[in-house]
Amino acid sequence: MASTTLAAGLAERETASLNAAMKRAAAATDAALERLLPAPSGEQARVCEAMRYAIFAGGKRLRPFLTLQGAALFGAPEPRAVRAAAAIEMLHTYSLVHDDLPCMDDDDLRRGRPTTHRQFDEATAVLAGDALLTASFEVLAGAETHPDGAVRAELVARLASAGGTSGMIGGQMMDMQAPERDYDEAGVILLQRMKTGALFEFACEAGPILAQASARDRQNLRDYARDLGLAFQIADDLIDALGSTEQAGKTVGKDQDQGKATLISLYGIERARSEAQRLAAQAAAAVSGYGPRADDLKALPFFLLDRAS
Amino acid sequence: MASTTLAAGLAERETASLNAAMKRAAAATDAALERLLPAPSGEQARVCEAMRYAIFAGGKRLRPFLTLQGAALFGAPEPRAVRAAAAIEMLHTYSLVHDDLPCMDDDDLRRGRPTTHRQFDEATAVLAGDALLTASFEVLAGAETHPDGAVRAELVARLASAGGTSGMIGGQMMDMQAPERDYDEAGVILLQRMKTGALFEFACEAGPILAQASARDRQNLRDYARDLGLAFQIADDLIDALGSTEQAGKTVGKDQDQGKATLISLYGIERARSEAQRLAAQAAAAVSGYGPRADDLKALPFFLLDRAS
Repeated sequence: MASTTLAAGLAERETASLNAAMKRAAAATDAALERLLPAPSGEQARVCEAMRYAIFAGGKRLRPFLTLQGAALFGAPEPRAVRAAAAIEMLHTYSLVHDDLPCMDDDDLRRGRPTTHRQFDEATAVLAGDALLTASFEVLAGAETHPDGAVRAELVARLASAGGTSGMIGGQMMDMQAPERDYDEAGVILLQRMKTGALFEFACEAGPILAQASARDRQNLRDYARDLGLAFQIADDLIDALGSTEQAGKTVGKDQDQGKATLISLYGIERARSEAQRLAAQAAAAVSGYGPRADDLKALPFFLLDRAS
Repeated sequence: MASTTLAAGLAERETASLNAAMKRAAAATDAALERLLPAPSGEQARVCEAMRYAIFAGGKRLRPFLTLQGAALFGAPEPRAVRAAAAIEMLHTYSLVHDDLPCMDDDDLRRGRPTTHRQFDEATAVLAGDALLTASFEVLAGAETHPDGAVRAELVARLASAGGTSGMIGGQMMDMQAPERDYDEAGVILLQRMKTGALFEFACEAGPILAQASARDRQNLRDYARDLGLAFQIADDLIDALGSTEQAGKTVGKDQDQGKATLISLYGIERARSEAQRLAAQAAAAVSGYGPRADDLKALPFFLLDRAS
């Protein structure tokens, strides 16, 4: 909707710049994933095929974009940053594969194609998810990620923390319990911060970590990520509540059917939309001190809201 | 059977020393796991409870024992070694939790208790496995594991490799395909080396890595682990083929029912037993150059075969 674009102050030129930067980041990430994922060969070829099926599904590579932007902002070399970006996308993809399983959200469709367990089988999907998770740490720990072993180890520890029980896995556990728990606003925000926000934070912080930037810089990027993540989640929930299956690339309207906790169900559509706008502006403010080099980062949250309006 | 003990040359004194060392290692590992695993609190408590249920199930802590022995052999401090040992046990336990799922081996019983998905539910078991896998890397990458970040990163990379598609996950993929593939001897040995052997190798090599021992020392421990791992697997298969559910702590006779590929089904009981004895002797020979400090390591493979005779 054009009016939202204007309201958010996102000019055509900014959108074009962001679109181009996202396309470059996605291409660099896909090339790295192609190199870094195991080739399907030997008797275990099937699980490698499933990993590739899950990850090469036309995703926007939003988290890798954040990592590459953060790295560029502080001068970390792109060949290192792209490895971190690929690792983060592997971990993100594992979470989608496992979340789609019949015992979790039981989804048949993801990005317009059969989910991994529908295309292969459940056992292969469980293993492919496990293997993507495992590979993400192997990539970060690899010598080419950074010459300083302490930096590599810190990336591993931070990714594990973002993906663990106080991050993504904890958030998914909360999500599975949502129908009987009836979370209030604070509960839903906590759930979203853990389930989606923690990995956004690491995606944004990985760049400054690679560049060995200051604690202040790392904090700024985490602040940006926190608000971006929540704005993104609201946008995603709006698509689920309002959008078509075609637009979403997955079965829509499932959140409500499954009693899932979303801010939409608590706020209603209009307040959710204005809250997302507020968060987007707050995210942009967190990186406003970096000047025009941060323009694409600043534009991103408004761009994501446009998708959902 | 007493005759096997005599044939293997394992005296009562050696068995007593090994038993005591294994008990000490198990206690040290359990104390570390207690500290390192997330406490069940907050809205995500359920997944933390499931992690603890799965890991505190009275296992023998065989892999941690190997890590602590390897560390002691080359002088790595025990507080560091015990973190590596705990990480390896976490990864091992995740593989059991996921392998037991209905879509994999569909086991109701493990170590004499309901499997994790039977005690909790399938979604929680998938998440608990994911969380144990994730935590294993977080522990290795933690600053207390080793002051040199390059050592921590190498531990992460090697564990990921042992647990990945060319190791444990690849072996499990082969195992799932076994009924239709009809593997020959080379295939079954490859499957076992990947599924079980790779983590045994890392468990043995983690000590010399922590001690920054020589490449030769690392190779000796890997050689030991390779033969030990296969001997252990044959012993385990013998228990499945011959033992009682009570002795095994899990449903026995399932390998044959499920058309699983084992060396027993290819060799028959007697040749499997003698092959395991040969492997045990070969494993012991790989560490014979380290004198009496390696006595418990040398005794271990024969001890494992005694269980199965």
